[in-house]
Amino acid sequence: MPVDPKAAAETTAFAWVPEFAQGQVRDLRVRWALEEAGLSYRERLLDAFNPRPEAYFQEQPFGQVPAYRDDTVQLFESGAIVLHIGERSPALLPRDAAGKARATAWVLAALNSIEPRIMELANIDFFHPGAEWGRLRRPEVVERLREKLARLAAWLGDKDYLEGAFTAGDLMMAAVLRALRHTDLVAEQPKLDAYLKRCEARPAFQRALAAQLEAFKNRAPAGAA
Amino acid sequence: MPVDPKAAAETTAFAWVPEFAQGQVRDLRVRWALEEAGLSYRERLLDAFNPRPEAYFQEQPFGQVPAYRDDTVQLFESGAIVLHIGERSPALLPRDAAGKARATAWVLAALNSIEPRIMELANIDFFHPGAEWGRLRRPEVVERLREKLARLAAWLGDKDYLEGAFTAGDLMMAAVLRALRHTDLVAEQPKLDAYLKRCEARPAFQRALAAQLEAFKNRAPAGAA
Repeated sequence: MPVDPKAAAETTAFAWVPEFAQGQVRDLRVRWALEEAGLSYRERLLDAFNPRPEAYFQEQPFGQVPAYRDDTVQLFESGAIVLHIGERSPALLPRDAAGKARATAWVLAALNSIEPRIMELANIDFFHPGAEWGRLRRPEVVERLREKLARLAAWLGDKDYLEGAFTAGDLMMAAVLRALRHTDLVAEQPKLDAYLKRCEARPAFQRALAAQLEAFKNRAPAGAA
Repeated sequence: MPVDPKAAAETTAFAWVPEFAQGQVRDLRVRWALEEAGLSYRERLLDAFNPRPEAYFQEQPFGQVPAYRDDTVQLFESGAIVLHIGERSPALLPRDAAGKARATAWVLAALNSIEPRIMELANIDFFHPGAEWGRLRRPEVVERLREKLARLAAWLGDKDYLEGAFTAGDLMMAAVLRALRHTDLVAEQPKLDAYLKRCEARPAFQRALAAQLEAFKNRAPAGAA
């Protein structure tokens, strides 16, 4: 769906971020979910390089991106927003209780079992490059992550998606795994590598990514790195 | 509810863990949710000190605790299990779409915005005490956490619970914050400190905690630290 200024759903996003973060900001997950669900949305762009306006903390208690609203609710946390959109679309969450719970489990696995380790690695590689603690810490972070990804690949086996058919769980897992693109950790697991490419090849993902990047074009703020 | 070997719901748990982890293992969240919902459950105890049996990875793809099953689904990830139990009980998730989405947002905020920083601190303090990287890294982890907790306290204000009335979001936030009990970080925020005590004073929490600790009594395995 094209971004539509008159849509009921709204996500916040950043007006511009440095190249390493382009295609990684978490509004991508919301855009992708809305695209899978066939729902149009509008965007509200925030300045990533200055403190959030104090009023924004009423929408997002930690000042993070994205915050979301639609005709039902004002919401935050990309995982919760994706689950909320999933309530409206069987393309994201199966309607039966068991299928829905399983898809939700993978959303949570992505966000609580996989992403914290990836955030720790990204913190070392992108936000503290050259720091002594990062040099000492990095090998174990990589090793633990490698073990987790091997388990994930073993689970996946020959399935196309984590539960067979695509769900919100795949959306979130792929969104999280993409943050490893500066490493070989996904490529080391051929089944996982093929899975991530399969998720990223989905037209809904492609439209979501293009929409996030579109906002960044010709917007590098004066003084930004 | 008492633990009942004939209950439909089952959670895995550890037979014994060292003292610093007692009352922290994540089956506590599942027990608490079931207690709030008024559902009885049985427990299946695993050995924390030896590798999980390979068959367990079919239940919990990363070998973690808890795994859960009931008459509907086999499930993993404490967040997903709590949300699944919440689908059965308005004591955890409001029935209206907006209230449910808001409660879900706080479950996700606990697990993805707060807990990763706490896990990083616990990793330094409990799993790598004395490590040079931890000594160098710790001040910033504490500072970022302090900022997040100040924002959380500001959101809470004079409310008893994050959205006014208790939900699964409070259950998860309190379960996550408890892992800071070896620091003053929660006590530094009086409103947050009172909130955590309020959550922990709930009879359902007390029963859940007692049940986890009960399993540990007189079970210290030979050779465990």
